[in-house]
Amino acid sequence: MNYKKLALDKHKQLGGKIALKLKDNLDSKENLSTYYTPGVAAVSSLVAEHPKQTRDYTWTNNNVAIVSDGSAVLGLGDIGPYGALPVMEGKAMLFKHFADIDAVPIVLDVHGTDEIVNAIKAIAPSFGGINLEDISAPKCFEIEERLKSDLKIPVMHDDQHGTAVVTLAGLINAAKVVGKDLNDCKVTLSGTGAAGIAIVKLIKKYAPKIHIIAVDSKGIIYKGRDNLNTSKEDLLKYLDKTSHEGSLKNAVTGADIFIGVSSPNILTTEMIKLMTPRPIIFAMANPDPEITPEKAMLAGAAVIATGRSDYPNQVNNALAFPGIFRGALDNNVHKITERHKLNAAEAIANLVEKPTADNIVPNIGNKKLVEVIANLIR
Amino acid sequence: MNYKKLALDKHKQLGGKIALKLKDNLDSKENLSTYYTPGVAAVSSLVAEHPKQTRDYTWTNNNVAIVSDGSAVLGLGDIGPYGALPVMEGKAMLFKHFADIDAVPIVLDVHGTDEIVNAIKAIAPSFGGINLEDISAPKCFEIEERLKSDLKIPVMHDDQHGTAVVTLAGLINAAKVVGKDLNDCKVTLSGTGAAGIAIVKLIKKYAPKIHIIAVDSKGIIYKGRDNLNTSKEDLLKYLDKTSHEGSLKNAVTGADIFIGVSSPNILTTEMIKLMTPRPIIFAMANPDPEITPEKAMLAGAAVIATGRSDYPNQVNNALAFPGIFRGALDNNVHKITERHKLNAAEAIANLVEKPTADNIVPNIGNKKLVEVIANLIR
Repeated sequence: MNYKKLALDKHKQLGGKIALKLKDNLDSKENLSTYYTPGVAAVSSLVAEHPKQTRDYTWTNNNVAIVSDGSAVLGLGDIGPYGALPVMEGKAMLFKHFADIDAVPIVLDVHGTDEIVNAIKAIAPSFGGINLEDISAPKCFEIEERLKSDLKIPVMHDDQHGTAVVTLAGLINAAKVVGKDLNDCKVTLSGTGAAGIAIVKLIKKYAPKIHIIAVDSKGIIYKGRDNLNTSKEDLLKYLDKTSHEGSLKNAVTGADIFIGVSSPNILTTEMIKLMTPRPIIFAMANPDPEITPEKAMLAGAAVIATGRSDYPNQVNNALAFPGIFRGALDNNVHKITERHKLNAAEAIANLVEKPTADNIVPNIGNKKLVEVIANLIR
Repeated sequence: MNYKKLALDKHKQLGGKIALKLKDNLDSKENLSTYYTPGVAAVSSLVAEHPKQTRDYTWTNNNVAIVSDGSAVLGLGDIGPYGALPVMEGKAMLFKHFADIDAVPIVLDVHGTDEIVNAIKAIAPSFGGINLEDISAPKCFEIEERLKSDLKIPVMHDDQHGTAVVTLAGLINAAKVVGKDLNDCKVTLSGTGAAGIAIVKLIKKYAPKIHIIAVDSKGIIYKGRDNLNTSKEDLLKYLDKTSHEGSLKNAVTGADIFIGVSSPNILTTEMIKLMTPRPIIFAMANPDPEITPEKAMLAGAAVIATGRSDYPNQVNNALAFPGIFRGALDNNVHKITERHKLNAAEAIANLVEKPTADNIVPNIGNKKLVEVIANLIR
């Protein structure tokens, strides 16, 4: 299927993918007077005096902003707000389709941390939650932290936490398939951007004794390496203390699990052969993984996951974020915590009754997903 | 009808008044791959390289932001962003109902001119137009001017220009009813906030020889009066040069037309009797007019208009803004000009074939309104 041409044609034909709809009509003078003046004045007076009740009387009980500055869009990189908008509209479709949440794409024409934080804080009363999307590391970390601390609505950078939750969900079941305990495993993580760092923190929370070696484009990350940025410095405390200078090849040697959130085709069959028997390969670079499933299988991988829908084991954020935001909105939860994320990962994993090599995560169409996750976000 | 109780009940029952809808479904893997990854990457790459084409591929060809800081909401005043949100959602309903435009309420938690301008500029790539709403004077003037100058999408403060357009439309027909030429008329304007100032400028553009005396809460505005703010100083050049100290009563004496965008019940029957024969009274304070139509009629008013739907001659912004934004979006117009506004006012007036005292403006339900106005916004 040539999705490139199809996508261009359909987007142009429809003129965008989302629209507004009204929950009631304005055909009668009575409805006009109820939903606009003079009736609406009573509602405005009430929520002005009791802002916490705004969610009961406006669409903020069911809406989120999907906010991006377009600095790290899909595999496209820093393409700016206009380029980001079609992706954010697509994400709004996912929110609506999977969780019946009304999500509004907000692409930002500012790029500094302060400017992004200020813009989002300024518009925050319009929304019931903020889904940060496709904002580059390391600024995404500070932006999310400041917003979480300053706003009283849930804020989640999905590239970090959505990815971490679904990765952990997949790992829980992959470990069952190969009969290993995650606490005994050695993990090689390739890619220490937003997703990689969040994955490390969450799996370390789930399995505190797990050993993790992280690799970026310059090789293994270790204490004392030149030019580590703040977020990589912070990462050191979660990593194997014995990490030292080396390549990806050195890092995967003897590893049980490879997790890639980095670049296409960087993992070779030779490298997989250096791992322990029955290795687990999560090659999640999008759209082109770190190694193709075909090659990984030939090299002896026991479980292979990617971000793609055309292979088994699609580790996709859409497994997690719809339920997480559904729960946060419905249960009026103001902060999404580590506990929420762990619970969500376990809930996703538990939806697969008997994990097998080709079935470690539920299908994103699984109708129970949103409900079981949402129930845990309290 | 007790709209207060009805409005509270209905808003709570529905949980807000607007929602998102998808232009196509995500039921198939093909659609998921077309509207999200991998297909959307082709669209993002294209518009990142050619930002002007964004409108062809995203909903910005049909969406506007309705932006308010809640500093001048309806008759309620400075009630802040939460209080403003139900009104902005109501306005979004009007946009959809009358013009099929997808409008997103954005209420701002910042209140300084710079902060409001910065927030709106930051989110501007997300939208095809900006409708400023319920922002207090005088900051609304500078905010609108700066946004018009800095952004390449249409920006209109509806409280100013929507009100001015419909007021002029009504005046054109009211003058026909009483057989007067607006260029020969003396106007008393009560209220020099956002609406009042825009009305003065637009009717002076339409009828350059018209005489206007403006009155605020401290009396007649005249050159040299103490404590005139910048916007009132600027207004002086449109006002009768002979204006001098005096009260509303002094101002209306000998006037042909009273235009009120001020406060309830400030115009008395005695004052109307001081006007010229067959006076025109536009008492548009909302929801309670400067004088009730019943009293105005008893005092001899020949034509009476209000902002209310329960009297004849409802001079309502909804006559103008849907068509203006429809035209700007459809015709890819980046600035709404004085000429656009004059054309819109005349088009609205012309929809009334034979103006009478009780019929100077079309009904807001008139199906031709949006089309005839939109065709003129080029």
